[in-house]
Amino acid sequence: MLRREYETQVCSIARSLEIVGERWSLLILRSVMMGFVRFDDLQAELGITRSVLTARLARLVEEGVLERVPYQSRPRRYEYRATEKGLELWPVLQHLVRWGDTYYPEPAGVPNVMEHAGCGGHPDDHLLCDRCGEPLAAGKIVVIPGPGSAATPAPR
Amino acid sequence: MLRREYETQVCSIARSLEIVGERWSLLILRSVMMGFVRFDDLQAELGITRSVLTARLARLVEEGVLERVPYQSRPRRYEYRATEKGLELWPVLQHLVRWGDTYYPEPAGVPNVMEHAGCGGHPDDHLLCDRCGEPLAAGKIVVIPGPGSAATPAPR
Repeated sequence: MLRREYETQVCSIARSLEIVGERWSLLILRSVMMGFVRFDDLQAELGITRSVLTARLARLVEEGVLERVPYQSRPRRYEYRATEKGLELWPVLQHLVRWGDTYYPEPAGVPNVMEHAGCGGHPDDHLLCDRCGEPLAAGKIVVIPGPGSAATPAPR
Repeated sequence: MLRREYETQVCSIARSLEIVGERWSLLILRSVMMGFVRFDDLQAELGITRSVLTARLARLVEEGVLERVPYQSRPRRYEYRATEKGLELWPVLQHLVRWGDTYYPEPAGVPNVMEHAGCGGHPDDHLLCDRCGEPLAAGKIVVIPGPGSAATPAPR
């Protein structure tokens, strides 16, 4: 970026990081978006203590990034879904994936491949489909295990 | 994202967050990219302790996200520059800005406005220029104080 004569302490990045700048929060959101929507599955997937996961989930629900949706009534149990607000963090996650794949590649290859559902193209540097040009968002992407995938079974 | 039958623990996001997932690291990178390139300026801008800033800068240099460049020889003093690897995190920062501006707006308006240098367009949802369509990256953007800017003077 070019310099300007005036700067500011007020920063949108700082405000965003207040909510999602803690490492676990982004990993939780990523796992929920990939289908790990129940507490026990999230806990197993992330290898995180129950108390930390409980606290982080509560914060993400409070901020409207995730929502709790009942899936069973007796006893009442909930699963987690990304809200519209949460889904709008998909570009942040996606660019972190791309950066990690570029600079910290797994010897066996990329763990996950993002594909444009129904098209087979892939997101380019600007998250447009490299085959059909469509602007991609979370709902249009299917995640396929890549060559570096550990390929452990999904929760259900 | 749609669910798939297989999942993996190996995650590019987790690897990226190892490096930049700590809140200060992204804020330091953002400040360097905005022209706060010397230790004292960074310290004043971020309101961070000297010891934390020293540790974070060392990590970012070690990982090749920032580089130390001498600007004075007696005594030898250094400033910090974003490397190519660091500049490639610009889309992550940019999407965090957009998310923050959408969901945590300042009452006075956005603190900073990103403009396509020499064009006057702005980055769209896919970081393409909304005026000329050019794909935007860090080097093509100028940051202008917005209506919500505190408008404190830049370091130099």
